[in-house]
Amino acid sequence: MVDILHRVGIKASTAEVYAALTSAERLAAWWTTDTTGVGDEVGGVLQFRFGAGGFDMKVDELVPGKRVQWEVIDGPEEWVGTHVIWDLDQVDDYTVILFNHQGWKEPVEFMHHCSTKWALFLMSLKSLIETGTGAPDPHDVKIDNWN
Amino acid sequence: MVDILHRVGIKASTAEVYAALTSAERLAAWWTTDTTGVGDEVGGVLQFRFGAGGFDMKVDELVPGKRVQWEVIDGPEEWVGTHVIWDLDQVDDYTVILFNHQGWKEPVEFMHHCSTKWALFLMSLKSLIETGTGAPDPHDVKIDNWN
Repeated sequence: MVDILHRVGIKASTAEVYAALTSAERLAAWWTTDTTGVGDEVGGVLQFRFGAGGFDMKVDELVPGKRVQWEVIDGPEEWVGTHVIWDLDQVDDYTVILFNHQGWKEPVEFMHHCSTKWALFLMSLKSLIETGTGAPDPHDVKIDNWN
Repeated sequence: MVDILHRVGIKASTAEVYAALTSAERLAAWWTTDTTGVGDEVGGVLQFRFGAGGFDMKVDELVPGKRVQWEVIDGPEEWVGTHVIWDLDQVDDYTVILFNHQGWKEPVEFMHHCSTKWALFLMSLKSLIETGTGAPDPHDVKIDNWN
């Protein structure tokens, strides 16, 4: 099992960051504009779509201002069964996010791609909260020939 | 052992990307302006400095247009003994980089930070080659309270 790890600090309260991870409307403003579903209840399902494909995430755990955990229940086969975990902590003026996309079976080339994309989407989340403007798909930063 | 993985595609030849990984002058244009040493000979040592700290990398392996591998021989203790591996491949108009910072002992918080920083520095490398302008330290994109 291998994991994608990232750390980003956002000049905002943990409540603001938590809202951007649990509201479909706020998720649509930094990850993909085509986001629907329920992110603020355990057992809720969020649908994230990117062009033809996408991911369905079941909300596994919610600790307001502290932690959000999703299980991938539909999407590319490399993603299904993995978990996406967001741990939040207030450090001085920042909410520090420790991000973990956990449980990849193999470090395939697609995992390398997703690791870099996650970093850019985390920067989109940071930008949304700090400046009011994110870069969600299809306005996201392109990183390679897969985009 | 845990690894940091990324994938970036650059619209350029593998020779151009290889040069940006082996010339101290080109490395200084995307990673840190304070780069000195020898990157184009196996056994050469590159010194990368970021303010007070930094890393010394010994060039382990060079395959022109294909692969660059460094061993970290001095720097933060979590880095020493790890390897940084760049695999290059031409795919259509792109040089695709598979990046692997391999051999971290533990998935510490600093590793999360370095994973995100590497993604942004890879985007700096991409930008340098595609547009002529990178974002090396101290002009790098800030990601958190550690910067």
